[in-house]
Amino acid sequence: MSGSPTRPAVILLSGGLDSATTLAWAIEHGHAVHALTVRYGQRHEIEIERAREIARDLGAVEHRVVDLDLTFVGGSALTDRSIEVPKSRAETALGDGIPVTYVPARNLLFLSLALAWAEVLDATDLFVGVNALDYSGYPDCRPEFLAAFERVAALATRQGIERRPPRIRAPLIDLSKAQIVLEALRLGLDPGRTISCYDPSEAGAACRQCDACLLRAKGFREAGVTDPAI
Amino acid sequence: MSGSPTRPAVILLSGGLDSATTLAWAIEHGHAVHALTVRYGQRHEIEIERAREIARDLGAVEHRVVDLDLTFVGGSALTDRSIEVPKSRAETALGDGIPVTYVPARNLLFLSLALAWAEVLDATDLFVGVNALDYSGYPDCRPEFLAAFERVAALATRQGIERRPPRIRAPLIDLSKAQIVLEALRLGLDPGRTISCYDPSEAGAACRQCDACLLRAKGFREAGVTDPAI
Repeated sequence: MSGSPTRPAVILLSGGLDSATTLAWAIEHGHAVHALTVRYGQRHEIEIERAREIARDLGAVEHRVVDLDLTFVGGSALTDRSIEVPKSRAETALGDGIPVTYVPARNLLFLSLALAWAEVLDATDLFVGVNALDYSGYPDCRPEFLAAFERVAALATRQGIERRPPRIRAPLIDLSKAQIVLEALRLGLDPGRTISCYDPSEAGAACRQCDACLLRAKGFREAGVTDPAI
Repeated sequence: MSGSPTRPAVILLSGGLDSATTLAWAIEHGHAVHALTVRYGQRHEIEIERAREIARDLGAVEHRVVDLDLTFVGGSALTDRSIEVPKSRAETALGDGIPVTYVPARNLLFLSLALAWAEVLDATDLFVGVNALDYSGYPDCRPEFLAAFERVAALATRQGIERRPPRIRAPLIDLSKAQIVLEALRLGLDPGRTISCYDPSEAGAACRQCDACLLRAKGFREAGVTDPAI
């Protein structure tokens, strides 16, 4: 589905492989994409710099970084330094239960922020890079959550009442990690520019042991591709 | 309905009459209330100080002020200084259409923040001071929005999956402003401590002409009570 390049869209961009692939996909599909990254007190703040580079290189119309410090909430290994990021879990355990890297209400908050911006831009689409296969077991990555968000978005906003709220678009929702790797390559994205790790070194090297690293490695292995970031 | 004072709850506290009355109501009903105020770039930032005083005086367990700068979104007279707050509108126009003081997705964002905190506190209830009668016509003050939020909250969070998400409580939803004034007095709240104005002076004096001031004045007049704040 292609279209006029003037259809504005908002995307949640983290600097990881999934959201970068989603950005490239949205641009391919004719959207003028406004990218939003949230600095929420995440352990892996280096992803924000990667998001900046990716937004610029792929051709986002603009990129905003918004501060929303979630460390006061805590309750996650990503926002509370006293909780360790699990390492080297069995691959079969990934997606089995909600792990400690889940951040309370994160996707609801981020989508709500994107929705606020989309309303002022009168954006037709709101893109998010979630996927429900080969994922970490987060409740807010499931299709039923996205459907409920679309419903509340229509009721919460002026755009929903007077015009129509943006559609929530998750083009990767049914893809495996291997399929996402192949889609990224098809779109001309360099996966080496993205970072997935929850607990990278200060220089940005992946730990290769957290769930995000394990899922990424599984994806590249199954796709038969070498990860240029490792 | 009274209960053990140990049932934790989260409340969105703005420093206005409605949320202060809701806080007093929640405490009367046996909740240990954790109050949350958002500094979002609002024109009337003085309300944050009032919220602090109210939380302390009424006996909230704790009070947090969270920064979430919505001026990058704009699109509202409350967050964009170039848009004027409407003054002296006809009383009959209040609630007729969505006014320019509506802030895109504000209540969705604030409820999502409160939900994140509620999850970590394992709070049973999430209080919000919205009312759908004698209000400003905001889409995110309607019962159907709150119902949709309760649904998305159940799907977005660990609390919703593994335990149960907090109930969204809006005890003022069906009250007129006059009834809210009388309820505040019944609860022993001093309305003079609250501030409703969208465009107060630096010293915190109400403008007496914005929609919020007009609705407040109508409430006190209909209740037959003098507003100690004016």
